[in-house]
Amino acid sequence: MRKTLNIGLIGVGRLGSLYARYFLGSIAHARLAAISDANEKAMQAFADQHDVSRRYAHYTDLLADKEIDAVVVVTPTDTHKEIALEAARQGKAVFCEKPLALSVEDCQAMKETVDRTGIFFHLGFMRRFDAGYSAAKQKIEEGVIGKPILIKSSSRDPFRPSMEYLKSSGGLFTDCGIHDIDLARWYMGDVQSVYSVGGNLAYPEMDEIGDVDNAITTLQFESGSLGVIDLSRSGVYGYDIRTEILGTQGTLQIGYLRETPLMVLTKNNVGHDTVPYFMERFGQAYRTQLQHFVDRFLSGQPPSITCADGLAALRICLAATQSYREKRPVPVG
Amino acid sequence: MRKTLNIGLIGVGRLGSLYARYFLGSIAHARLAAISDANEKAMQAFADQHDVSRRYAHYTDLLADKEIDAVVVVTPTDTHKEIALEAARQGKAVFCEKPLALSVEDCQAMKETVDRTGIFFHLGFMRRFDAGYSAAKQKIEEGVIGKPILIKSSSRDPFRPSMEYLKSSGGLFTDCGIHDIDLARWYMGDVQSVYSVGGNLAYPEMDEIGDVDNAITTLQFESGSLGVIDLSRSGVYGYDIRTEILGTQGTLQIGYLRETPLMVLTKNNVGHDTVPYFMERFGQAYRTQLQHFVDRFLSGQPPSITCADGLAALRICLAATQSYREKRPVPVG
Amino acid sequence: MRKTLNIGLIGVGRLGSLYARYFLGSIAHARLAAISDANEKAMQAFADQHDVSRRYAHYTDLLADKEIDAVVVVTPTDTHKEIALEAARQGKAVFCEKPLALSVEDCQAMKETVDRTGIFFHLGFMRRFDAGYSAAKQKIEEGVIGKPILIKSSSRDPFRPSMEYLKSSGGLFTDCGIHDIDLARWYMGDVQSVYSVGGNLAYPEMDEIGDVDNAITTLQFESGSLGVIDLSRSGVYGYDIRTEILGTQGTLQIGYLRETPLMVLTKNNVGHDTVPYFMERFGQAYRTQLQHFVDRFLSGQPPSITCADGLAALRICLAATQSYREKRPVPVG
Amino acid sequence: MRKTLNIGLIGVGRLGSLYARYFLGSIAHARLAAISDANEKAMQAFADQHDVSRRYAHYTDLLADKEIDAVVVVTPTDTHKEIALEAARQGKAVFCEKPLALSVEDCQAMKETVDRTGIFFHLGFMRRFDAGYSAAKQKIEEGVIGKPILIKSSSRDPFRPSMEYLKSSGGLFTDCGIHDIDLARWYMGDVQSVYSVGGNLAYPEMDEIGDVDNAITTLQFESGSLGVIDLSRSGVYGYDIRTEILGTQGTLQIGYLRETPLMVLTKNNVGHDTVPYFMERFGQAYRTQLQHFVDRFLSGQPPSITCADGLAALRICLAATQSYREKRPVPVG
Repeated sequence: MRKTLNIGLIGVGRLGSLYARYFLGSIAHARLAAISDANEKAMQAFADQHDVSRRYAHYTDLLADKEIDAVVVVTPTDTHKEIALEAARQGKAVFCEKPLALSVEDCQAMKETVDRTGIFFHLGFMRRFDAGYSAAKQKIEEGVIGKPILIKSSSRDPFRPSMEYLKSSGGLFTDCGIHDIDLARWYMGDVQSVYSVGGNLAYPEMDEIGDVDNAITTLQFESGSLGVIDLSRSGVYGYDIRTEILGTQGTLQIGYLRETPLMVLTKNNVGHDTVPYFMERFGQAYRTQLQHFVDRFLSGQPPSITCADGLAALRICLAATQSYREKRPVPVG
Repeated sequence: MRKTLNIGLIGVGRLGSLYARYFLGSIAHARLAAISDANEKAMQAFADQHDVSRRYAHYTDLLADKEIDAVVVVTPTDTHKEIALEAARQGKAVFCEKPLALSVEDCQAMKETVDRTGIFFHLGFMRRFDAGYSAAKQKIEEGVIGKPILIKSSSRDPFRPSMEYLKSSGGLFTDCGIHDIDLARWYMGDVQSVYSVGGNLAYPEMDEIGDVDNAITTLQFESGSLGVIDLSRSGVYGYDIRTEILGTQGTLQIGYLRETPLMVLTKNNVGHDTVPYFMERFGQAYRTQLQHFVDRFLSGQPPSITCADGLAALRICLAATQSYREKRPVPVG
Repeated sequence: MRKTLNIGLIGVGRLGSLYARYFLGSIAHARLAAISDANEKAMQAFADQHDVSRRYAHYTDLLADKEIDAVVVVTPTDTHKEIALEAARQGKAVFCEKPLALSVEDCQAMKETVDRTGIFFHLGFMRRFDAGYSAAKQKIEEGVIGKPILIKSSSRDPFRPSMEYLKSSGGLFTDCGIHDIDLARWYMGDVQSVYSVGGNLAYPEMDEIGDVDNAITTLQFESGSLGVIDLSRSGVYGYDIRTEILGTQGTLQIGYLRETPLMVLTKNNVGHDTVPYFMERFGQAYRTQLQHFVDRFLSGQPPSITCADGLAALRICLAATQSYREKRPVPVG
Repeated sequence: MRKTLNIGLIGVGRLGSLYARYFLGSIAHARLAAISDANEKAMQAFADQHDVSRRYAHYTDLLADKEIDAVVVVTPTDTHKEIALEAARQGKAVFCEKPLALSVEDCQAMKETVDRTGIFFHLGFMRRFDAGYSAAKQKIEEGVIGKPILIKSSSRDPFRPSMEYLKSSGGLFTDCGIHDIDLARWYMGDVQSVYSVGGNLAYPEMDEIGDVDNAITTLQFESGSLGVIDLSRSGVYGYDIRTEILGTQGTLQIGYLRETPLMVLTKNNVGHDTVPYFMERFGQAYRTQLQHFVDRFLSGQPPSITCADGLAALRICLAATQSYREKRPVPVG
């Protein structure tokens, strides 16, 4: 029989709480053994609902706990590096939410530490674990669409996040686009150059913080293949995430818009609702990814998404941002 | 090279005018040579728009015209028999709109005349020539769904016809249901017995004329297969015609609801319009059927839909009506 | 702050295990405190995966446990009555999977006991808690489709259960149809009479056990409204559950067929997969229903689905079965 | 009553023949009075099927015919200018298929002649008359999606045209992209700059002629809005034309893929066919545009699509081509 991992969860905010419920209910071979959150109220709110005995105000104490085998990091991005480095010192396996970090230097530091210490480090990109996205990967590998030659990906949020969030978000091309960028690399390989256009077309107040609310980035892959990503903070009709991969023998279309399995037909109209937000769309993918993390670690396989993936995706995001600012195509370093 | 048929059109109302336009523009190997309509205004309106030199106030004169090879009959149902009998006397080929007639006796008289004289007589059931319905027939013949075991068919009008129309319509089970009944026979074979329920649930004023606005009829086929047809005069959201044929290896679903290729997405809603009425849904099928009529006749093949089909369909409609009235299953004579 | 219910789970087979995971992970205000299963292996398999300290070989011991506030009964139908009666004796709240029982007498005995003792007893009909079905109920109550006048419901299993299962299933009209029947009552009110046709069209071996693999039942409601249910054990393309409610102002269509959000487009073909089975289709509805059970009980509200509902649904199923056998419409007693 | 236009059709190839059938059958207030085609065989083939008495081997003779009110030009693009200039000399109204011409100079010459002589000159861009595209225009004007801020348009041919055709086609960005470019202008206004990437990813043999088989062009509009067009000669699954217009209050999606109203469901698969090619997709739009041409001319309104539109669209196509070659954003002159 296999061992059961003792999981320490660092960060019990909205996404962290979801992860906790998964570990409590439906992740095999793992159990939630400890939590930590710098926010005392968040930790108390969590403790009121769930029975987790080990609670640490500071993550360093959780990482020092010998009973903990692996940590799941769901904290603000600017804390990822320090947590990862301390986890490496303590020899813990790490699951870290995307993005890895917001600077190339931080990503490189994390990558070097992980490489040097050899800890198991999985970077979270949950879309790869969505049933649609993973089935698409398999279809491509089976040759169903021939050689992939073009990718189109679109991410639209139904509303603008708070200005406060936006200020430290890294900007649209990184905060929102990194998912599509990671998918583009996963399906199509390395990116050679990018070109972006963008603007504040729905929320003029975003001009002040130097960010854009809508943008389009074209990609040229090293293989010669082509790509385009469009991003929006103003998809007011719903949370709309779509990707298409065109191959020489067919095309794959991933995504859906209807949340509730109900069509309402009234005078000359057929209507249905839409997916509200990312929790509804990717809740199951988050769970699948956590189970994957546990299974890979326990079975001795290397992680499937690494610091190198986080670094490569960030480089493309930064090039896309630079291209928008300099109004020219930018090669990916 | 093949000969071109001289067509005489009897009845230039709404559907007749559509047929005329098809013969003028896009039916190969046939030309519209003469028209006839008892309604002088209808004929004048038609003549104002289209250049057809031979016009007859009475259909007997059109039928006597030696230049006419074939007639297309789009007149009220209660005139079908007399026109068909006269056409047989004159040896003309006949295309006759459904239903054949509204009594078994009339259907039998027409069938006997056609059989005796050997004229080419095609009964119009345009749904068989719709791209969806005919593709379904082919899929069944190719064995794609294995053995057909159950048919579900639904016909919904978006509004109630005038009370005047309804009075002479033959009632819901015949007027509206005969299309589904014909399809059921075409796909599944002969019907053994039927059972109907119905009611005036949307238009209580229909009680007065002894007709119903909504009804469901179950069918047992001689093969043991099963069927159900639901009919409605109150499908207010649009003209909704759907048929499903379940087989042992799969199922076929025929029909569609969206008229315009446009999706409108607004706050938490995805919507599109619906098919307005039968002209929009089956306009192309009417055309295909006319071409089929011309081609079969010119190539010396027998008609694909006959008086026997019209008679058999009517018998089932009458049994369905009787079942509703007597509240019991009724065998089909 | 609210109390947390101690739940005793009786039956940890396939569905029971799902329920257990829900109670462990994502049902608020309840915790899984004890399990019981007559099958020792099932209980051991469960204990290997989940940490539930109180385990009882016999349900009577679980019911006698003073720490247990409520029991969830997921055992074979023929044990429901005895468990319910004992639970009533012990004053426990009960959630009992459908069907209540397979005879009118047993249903009545349960109903009388529950009425007499006043225990909180919720009968499980998870479809009512599916996002589509519950949204449809709300739309009807809001008047979106006017007055409901016709219901069509279809349940198709992708394969035949084992002959052993079928023998004690109660037959197609009950085992499979009771869900559609319950929905019909919920949306449309009481049923006056039914008429059924059926046959063994895909699995002739079912003749031996006197059951059918495909059937159609028409319903007449006391309101005058109409209904039809078609049932199949041979929907080989996937698990297909669809319901439509036609009203005087529109129609509602509940259901979906695609499991994975991926379209595969190859030469002249657009394709997607289907829902495999009921766990995939209604997994979330089961969870929602359990939470509803907990919330209603804790808040002092009466159960929303009662023994009376179970009894009424069974009466209709039995009438549908009788109608099939006697080839005539049967009034619902 | 209104006058009936005598139409002279110049070019009776594939598209010309379709136009002829429309004029013969279903365009009100116009009749096909004469045809002309440099290809003798094409003209004979047409005459064998349709009864048009006036036939001219050379278009100049048709244009000199005093009976002809208006000409419809469906000839190779490189003849458009000379025909238009001669038509202007003869004072005929002109309907001219897109593209206007393949050089800015030719477009300008045509525009100047039309402006100087004041003839009625309508440039054909049939997509504007498609039910989906025209309904989208109306929704935008009604404010349904707020302010349009982003357009995505995609045109995919199911196969590569012959190399011979490609050599004189003007290249992918013009031949295929001009439709999307015209729509982009129609919905979003003038274009400021473009950036293109492209490659021969499916048909390496196209390298020889300096054309590409797949490409993506991003657009910046003078309003600040954004756009992207992707073009493919290798959409092997079907003829796929899609456009989306995102606004601040919603989004519009135009297009469809299913040709036949039939879903085929077999083991774990739901499938349907696709639109074969442009005749099936836009056949009706061509008809609507011809009627529009006739109606506008007869009612004394100016043409809705002009030489200026043809010139502006061509400039953008040429800039897109140049951008691809020079690997930099190109301002639209």
